[in-house]
Amino acid sequence: MAKEKKLVESITSMSEDFAQWYTDVVKKAELVEYSNVRGCMIIRPNGYAIWENIQKELDRRFKETGVENVYMPMFIPESLLQKEKDHVEGFAPEVAWVTQGGLETLPERLCVRPTSETLFCDFYSRIIQSHRDLPKLYNQWCSVVRWEKTTRPFLRSAEFLWQEGHTAHATEEEAEARTIQMLNVYADFCEEELAIPVIKGRKTDKEKFAGAHSTYTIEALMHDGKALQSGTSHNFGDGFAKAFDIQYSDSQNQLQYVHQTSWGMSTRIIGALIMVHGDDSGLKLPPRIAPVQAMVIPISQRKEGVMEKAASLRDVLKEAGIRVKLDDSDKSPGWKFSEQEMRGIPIRVEIGPKDMEQNQAVIVRRDTREKLVVSLDELAEKAKEILDCIQKDMLARAKEHLKEHTYVARDYEEFKKIVAEKPGFVKMMWCGDEACELKIKEDTTATSRCMPFEQEQITDVCPVCGKPAKTMVYWGKAY
Amino acid sequence: MAKEKKLVESITSMSEDFAQWYTDVVKKAELVEYSNVRGCMIIRPNGYAIWENIQKELDRRFKETGVENVYMPMFIPESLLQKEKDHVEGFAPEVAWVTQGGLETLPERLCVRPTSETLFCDFYSRIIQSHRDLPKLYNQWCSVVRWEKTTRPFLRSAEFLWQEGHTAHATEEEAEARTIQMLNVYADFCEEELAIPVIKGRKTDKEKFAGAHSTYTIEALMHDGKALQSGTSHNFGDGFAKAFDIQYSDSQNQLQYVHQTSWGMSTRIIGALIMVHGDDSGLKLPPRIAPVQAMVIPISQRKEGVMEKAASLRDVLKEAGIRVKLDDSDKSPGWKFSEQEMRGIPIRVEIGPKDMEQNQAVIVRRDTREKLVVSLDELAEKAKEILDCIQKDMLARAKEHLKEHTYVARDYEEFKKIVAEKPGFVKMMWCGDEACELKIKEDTTATSRCMPFEQEQITDVCPVCGKPAKTMVYWGKAY
Repeated sequence: MAKEKKLVESITSMSEDFAQWYTDVVKKAELVEYSNVRGCMIIRPNGYAIWENIQKELDRRFKETGVENVYMPMFIPESLLQKEKDHVEGFAPEVAWVTQGGLETLPERLCVRPTSETLFCDFYSRIIQSHRDLPKLYNQWCSVVRWEKTTRPFLRSAEFLWQEGHTAHATEEEAEARTIQMLNVYADFCEEELAIPVIKGRKTDKEKFAGAHSTYTIEALMHDGKALQSGTSHNFGDGFAKAFDIQYSDSQNQLQYVHQTSWGMSTRIIGALIMVHGDDSGLKLPPRIAPVQAMVIPISQRKEGVMEKAASLRDVLKEAGIRVKLDDSDKSPGWKFSEQEMRGIPIRVEIGPKDMEQNQAVIVRRDTREKLVVSLDELAEKAKEILDCIQKDMLARAKEHLKEHTYVARDYEEFKKIVAEKPGFVKMMWCGDEACELKIKEDTTATSRCMPFEQEQITDVCPVCGKPAKTMVYWGKAY
Repeated sequence: MAKEKKLVESITSMSEDFAQWYTDVVKKAELVEYSNVRGCMIIRPNGYAIWENIQKELDRRFKETGVENVYMPMFIPESLLQKEKDHVEGFAPEVAWVTQGGLETLPERLCVRPTSETLFCDFYSRIIQSHRDLPKLYNQWCSVVRWEKTTRPFLRSAEFLWQEGHTAHATEEEAEARTIQMLNVYADFCEEELAIPVIKGRKTDKEKFAGAHSTYTIEALMHDGKALQSGTSHNFGDGFAKAFDIQYSDSQNQLQYVHQTSWGMSTRIIGALIMVHGDDSGLKLPPRIAPVQAMVIPISQRKEGVMEKAASLRDVLKEAGIRVKLDDSDKSPGWKFSEQEMRGIPIRVEIGPKDMEQNQAVIVRRDTREKLVVSLDELAEKAKEILDCIQKDMLARAKEHLKEHTYVARDYEEFKKIVAEKPGFVKMMWCGDEACELKIKEDTTATSRCMPFEQEQITDVCPVCGKPAKTMVYWGKAY
């Protein structure tokens, strides 16, 4: 028993130290291993399989909207990075520079891409001539590098995996529509696949992407009440087009600048999965994204016929399209349960001699720990129902948590008190002035998360400065 | 008509200048665009979609053998690269070095991975303790960088995409078996999916991978009679394990070094696809790997009902599981045919008013240009049959080409004559001495491609030096 308890006991409880709990889960669930390379992590099979499922599902959704995948070079010549002024200012301080190739010193430094707007712009300037060439709807899956000082697995690391979509359009309206469309793709994906509800909205100018006209975001609320920016979609207008001279001849044969967008989601979203759903036993994965949805665990596995029966249940579940594994190792059942829970596998199926006698198995839900005795005649059917139910319940609980941790502030004192005492989002009106945004950050460390699409008129004035309120903002502390 | 001819006329014929033909096809089929980054290419949607299909199919085959995917950092600290002596000697001259991060100069240079043996070894040394932890069967899909002087799209570029599998085993036998197993996965994949027959064998010591005990290879023959190394699988023995101290305790609790393998296939294989199957009209893709298998092209598309009918044929084919597109652009049919041929789409389906009257369509095979009139009642069925037939025929033709261009040399004069006059493989015996290998290369520019698994005893002595022959070798000029 001592050994069995070890796996769970070895992780810090959420209430005691949330940051340490996160680190423990990431390590014990074998999602990540630290590496000898400063700020870089190794994504292990349990972690990478989650990313593969995210990729598969997002990629399918992108392609349904007409997006095609490409691959761009990982290096950006310094002169190219510098073409758009705001963009280079935003990124230059945090890039890694290649200065030597083989035995020679390079005539021009190359940065390892922190994002690929400049490369796509250069590419588009070569391949776009006519309105017939538009729109261009390209995306790439790749890794990018940002030389961060402090790093945390998935949330912030010197190198991370992501997708970056880059589109070029004939008109401003079309670019804006695409920006919103992709934000909606992200939001739907988070809700439907990851069981994570998000707030959709626009970033303030202070928080927007370097070089963008407007940045839209989806913001999710973690278990500890902090926000995580989970995906962004940017409308660049024709700013990059002018910097990179991307023009097309319209149907009247007039030269026009294109309008561009970009949008990205990264391995950061795995951090959200962990922090929205996890508990003191470890990870809790929504069935639709879980690499393994069911673990079959034999009880008294040395008894005659048990292992064979367990294997046959695995086969039945697999046949029904469930991603299932059998834990046939020589560990004790208790240890196997702990591992299955730590890894967040949505259900386990227990089968032992007594169950066999009664032609049944016990399905245990990871999310609620509920045990359900199920006839073997309808095992696959029931398992599917339970998985669907878990997916729905996890989303419902996350929505409930979001609702319970979203507050309203009518004056600034109330706002400060909420931020200090109640982790979560605070809705408060804003005048649109960056000075108020800065003051809030200085006073409370909370930042503007977004100006949500769903607006409310809480007060008529900005509680910070008393000037007329322009918009309602979600404020919060963030990762 | 002038415009229609342009697409085809704009590419050089194979017989005139094969290298230029290759470059033209790559560009006109829109597989690749050159970039502003030295030695790096942009893989466009038509090219990347081929890579996605390759990935999907290879990845499925890897996973069937128990392989799991991971992601390792893209940077390797110089000290880590230097741990295995042969390895660093092989790669150090051709790597790109990061020396600055953000605004600071790094205390230690980081190279951008040219391959990840050293990172996997470091990782394995952390996570392998017991024989229960073995085998480890990991793979990653990523990009790597080798600072090549001369570059050609897909065949040789400063950055390229690939997969690299890295495994660790308890015994020498198991590592050797895995090395061969993965070589067979590559060979089967090439034959079954890409319709490319390959020669399987072992590399000579001179040609093996830096740090490997033995390197196995699959060698394919291009249309111009030059060889292309298309995939390699390495057995490292315990050399890396000793350099990186990767030990496990065996069942008797004794410390043992692991035995390791690695194996890789890259975007280079797209070069093989082009050069094995292509012709003067462009690319010719085997149906199983083609991103688009059928293009529906309406004839007299402005006539009433034609476009609607064409769309309905597209839907019928899609429904049947064929990857199909409809070319509903306002280009002429002739231009559309040229584009479909240039892109190597295996079949086109022509439908016009006359066909509609007779409830038929015309299917044109890309590989043979054969036209088949097909009743619309059995369109999907026939299209599938034709696609299967194309796949088989393309492999058969490639096999025939390989056979016709494989020669046997019994003496060295004959060998030199063949190499000079007949592009292809030459089978000749070898004593095993590197001096003879070097002499052959100097005299003819041909290199040893591999010592094939299927051996023959052509002569008893090495035709170069007259010493006893040890093995038969495939020799040839190579990309």
